[in-house]
Amino acid sequence: MTDGQARKQRLAQFIHEVWDFGREEAVGRYLAPSYTLLHDPGDPWDGQVLDLEGYKARLRVSRAPFPDQQFDIQRLYADGDAVVMTWLWKASHFGDIPGFPATGEIIRMSGATAYLFDAAERLSGHWQITDRLGVFQQLQRNKARAG
Amino acid sequence: MTDGQARKQRLAQFIHEVWDFGREEAVGRYLAPSYTLLHDPGDPWDGQVLDLEGYKARLRVSRAPFPDQQFDIQRLYADGDAVVMTWLWKASHFGDIPGFPATGEIIRMSGATAYLFDAAERLSGHWQITDRLGVFQQLQRNKARAG
Repeated sequence: MTDGQARKQRLAQFIHEVWDFGREEAVGRYLAPSYTLLHDPGDPWDGQVLDLEGYKARLRVSRAPFPDQQFDIQRLYADGDAVVMTWLWKASHFGDIPGFPATGEIIRMSGATAYLFDAAERLSGHWQITDRLGVFQQLQRNKARAG
Repeated sequence: MTDGQARKQRLAQFIHEVWDFGREEAVGRYLAPSYTLLHDPGDPWDGQVLDLEGYKARLRVSRAPFPDQQFDIQRLYADGDAVVMTWLWKASHFGDIPGFPATGEIIRMSGATAYLFDAAERLSGHWQITDRLGVFQQLQRNKARAG
């Protein structure tokens, strides 16, 4: 298995275990002690450097409104010290978001994320774009229906 | 030069010549006869298969409000038959968009795009996410100021 293939496998496991299932105790097995959100418009931690506890807090807060979230990885591209992931995502809106009380409705999102690996094969940061206008429009439509 | 390096160079030239400068006559040198927008939420041609004339029409319509647009490529990742590009973009809003008359103000956007190459090294499609909520917010703010 090449380095790129090993990194793809590791990233897919990380997404499944940490983001799909929310296993905070697994974060330390995948992440470098210092993790940088290089670019992630709309993410409250955009631009920040997080330690493991900071990343776990981001995981907890981000997953709270969408506890059954599932990533559907479309494709993984390995080059240099990075793996890029294109993805679809769906979740039930079970927790309140400021301005958008929980409705239980399914929300869908898509995105693309470049993950960086350090010399010890740990994730050290990402550069990400998500279709947050699509999410915003779904939340607004569901709110209008519920109201 | 590896295939991946050659594709990166070719993609960067395509973006510069076709999208930054709007040279419709160059499209045929880069594109396959059939080009598929696999995923591009918010793009009016999302999901469609375009021939060269269709792609040129998309180029013309997309560039009309933003004639001085410039892509700032952040990084290129080559794997398999694809090159992924992470990018920033800026343009002056010089042409009207439905609901948003031209203001001349600078608009900024970021995105990530996976471009597919065919066996003849031509671009045959893409999978793209752009931060269209960020653009929408800038357009709204500029409109409120102008009004």
